[in-house]
Amino acid sequence: MTGAPDRLPKALEILERLEAGAPEKVTKNLDAFHPDAAELILGYSFADIVGRDGIDLKTREMLTVAMLAAMGTAQGQLEFHVRAAMNAGVSREEIVEIVLQVSVYAGVPACMNAITAAKKAFETVEAG
Amino acid sequence: MTGAPDRLPKALEILERLEAGAPEKVTKNLDAFHPDAAELILGYSFADIVGRDGIDLKTREMLTVAMLAAMGTAQGQLEFHVRAAMNAGVSREEIVEIVLQVSVYAGVPACMNAITAAKKAFETVEAG
Amino acid sequence: MTGAPDRLPKALEILERLEAGAPEKVTKNLDAFHPDAAELILGYSFADIVGRDGIDLKTREMLTVAMLAAMGTAQGQLEFHVRAAMNAGVSREEIVEIVLQVSVYAGVPACMNAITAAKKAFETVEAG
Amino acid sequence: MTGAPDRLPKALEILERLEAGAPEKVTKNLDAFHPDAAELILGYSFADIVGRDGIDLKTREMLTVAMLAAMGTAQGQLEFHVRAAMNAGVSREEIVEIVLQVSVYAGVPACMNAITAAKKAFETVEAG
Amino acid sequence: MTGAPDRLPKALEILERLEAGAPEKVTKNLDAFHPDAAELILGYSFADIVGRDGIDLKTREMLTVAMLAAMGTAQGQLEFHVRAAMNAGVSREEIVEIVLQVSVYAGVPACMNAITAAKKAFETVEAG
Amino acid sequence: MTGAPDRLPKALEILERLEAGAPEKVTKNLDAFHPDAAELILGYSFADIVGRDGIDLKTREMLTVAMLAAMGTAQGQLEFHVRAAMNAGVSREEIVEIVLQVSVYAGVPACMNAITAAKKAFETVEAG
Repeated sequence: MTGAPDRLPKALEILERLEAGAPEKVTKNLDAFHPDAAELILGYSFADIVGRDGIDLKTREMLTVAMLAAMGTAQGQLEFHVRAAMNAGVSREEIVEIVLQVSVYAGVPACMNAITAAKKAFETVEAG
Repeated sequence: MTGAPDRLPKALEILERLEAGAPEKVTKNLDAFHPDAAELILGYSFADIVGRDGIDLKTREMLTVAMLAAMGTAQGQLEFHVRAAMNAGVSREEIVEIVLQVSVYAGVPACMNAITAAKKAFETVEAG
Repeated sequence: MTGAPDRLPKALEILERLEAGAPEKVTKNLDAFHPDAAELILGYSFADIVGRDGIDLKTREMLTVAMLAAMGTAQGQLEFHVRAAMNAGVSREEIVEIVLQVSVYAGVPACMNAITAAKKAFETVEAG
Repeated sequence: MTGAPDRLPKALEILERLEAGAPEKVTKNLDAFHPDAAELILGYSFADIVGRDGIDLKTREMLTVAMLAAMGTAQGQLEFHVRAAMNAGVSREEIVEIVLQVSVYAGVPACMNAITAAKKAFETVEAG
Repeated sequence: MTGAPDRLPKALEILERLEAGAPEKVTKNLDAFHPDAAELILGYSFADIVGRDGIDLKTREMLTVAMLAAMGTAQGQLEFHVRAAMNAGVSREEIVEIVLQVSVYAGVPACMNAITAAKKAFETVEAG
Repeated sequence: MTGAPDRLPKALEILERLEAGAPEKVTKNLDAFHPDAAELILGYSFADIVGRDGIDLKTREMLTVAMLAAMGTAQGQLEFHVRAAMNAGVSREEIVEIVLQVSVYAGVPACMNAITAAKKAFETVEAG
């Protein structure tokens, strides 16, 4: 009833590529808020936009990490997207370069918060 | 006296790749502010960080456009970096995808401001 | 092809209620950027979200003015939404109260920028 | 000595309406910082501004939730104001709509943080 | 009716120290918005807070320039406060150092915007 | 290899003045992220910029506290810099005034977060 009839499945497929098991976890969280939330939010984010052609998923995740780190208002989601970026093929070295570049455009405190997020993600991804 | 002795020339070389003639224009602006400003600011931004290996200049400019658009506080510099990104090899289609992705992570008004910046850059680069 | 087949017409209908003539102006701007932009951005903003039941359009525009003023990164869109809010039934007195409340939650400079936007909108709406 | 002589009592009365017991808790916190803090901060926020006529308290709290969620820099206060909004008569359904609207104007990560805050508030208020 | 009976005169006195003629200009702007605005906004800003003892006006203006430059959302007010800072005794050299320090904590684009504001203020103050 | 050969030692000397033992703690954190991070980030922040003449370290730390509190995106670093400010000679009374001034320029929630940070720093510094 909101969005395209097949928007959510496409979104969940992309989310699963970003982190195995994420679709279940995220939809459970959103369903407990409101039954339309997953279709609207994940549908727009991942099916309408991130799932578009023109930039591959690996590069999109690099952009997402850059945006979240620069904004500095969603530390938990920054941690998720550093892991997701690595799952999508971004190397540890590339994460380091993105995070250092954040210091230029958003300042050193934003960079330091991104370092914290990146170190957590490195531990998880490299342990996994 | 500040930074590495050869930091500014390296920075200006990268800035020239981003936009022909930018080094003269930017250093003139910074020198009129303070004689150390160009060495410190351009030296850190472009020689210390953006000039590092690990991510190519094209991808770095995509990240910069993403960060500036998401932060929403430097419209003039966003316009510059859309042009710079295209000069570094980013296609118009890739700019479109970055800008649309901004709507997900920073909201529609940030995306609309980025559309304004991108359209100005498209006109300049495609006319040039 | 993206979103629901009927998302854009619903979005444009709401946009027309916010300001007569806005759909033509906004879609022309977005189409010049990319042919999918209007469907995606307006479709998500107005059909998927703002067009939902649960809060009436007048109250939604009050919320939008509050958010844009607090964020302080989209002055042009703040001006549009003050006018849109008044077109949706928000009184001048209510705009004043929203703008003063911005000073508490986002600070006096954000409030001052909102005063500038509100005064422009007052002139336009009250002249119109 | 600062502000109107009766500014603090009026402020605390409004704060009590927002959450029973909040005046004691908040003034204790502020007094431990500086003896003038409660009069200045609460006096300005609630007596000078939020206590004004022109918009009812319920609508003001909807605006506050919208602003805090869009700014994304005060998660604890966002949680407080979702509870306060519900205490002032905002329904769970209205909170849901505000939070979804945040995704349009401030992006999905801001919306996700607001969902976290809203779910905590729902549990507290509905348990209470 | 709002605030202390003598809050506005005290505020205007401080504003006059920050820039000769500013009280008339600012109150005219605020009065055209709402008759209570000057008393509330200037009264809180300058009488309740900036007029307090504990930090001298010169240092307060340095802090204001730092905050506005770091936030990056009120360029016009940043220009005003660079001029005001210099009128309150801050030297051109000190402005330069504040602006350079902004690059560390808020990033280079915020610093560049502050350079633009500072250069305008330098021209005005030094011409005056 | 990056920056001036002697940039890091100078930076660490300033960091030690801000908090005894901080150089070891911060470099350990940064080294675990990337071997170049300390030289680049601390070198730029403290040797290139904060270590410059023109403003004394005490005033610089007041500015840093103002900027971090106004931005509201780095609570941990705000706590560090309140302590650092006090170690550099800023009095508790001056911290109070900076924090109250934040309410004017960045809003009450930013001020409340700064109060939380300041109270933690007061306990640590005054206990120490």
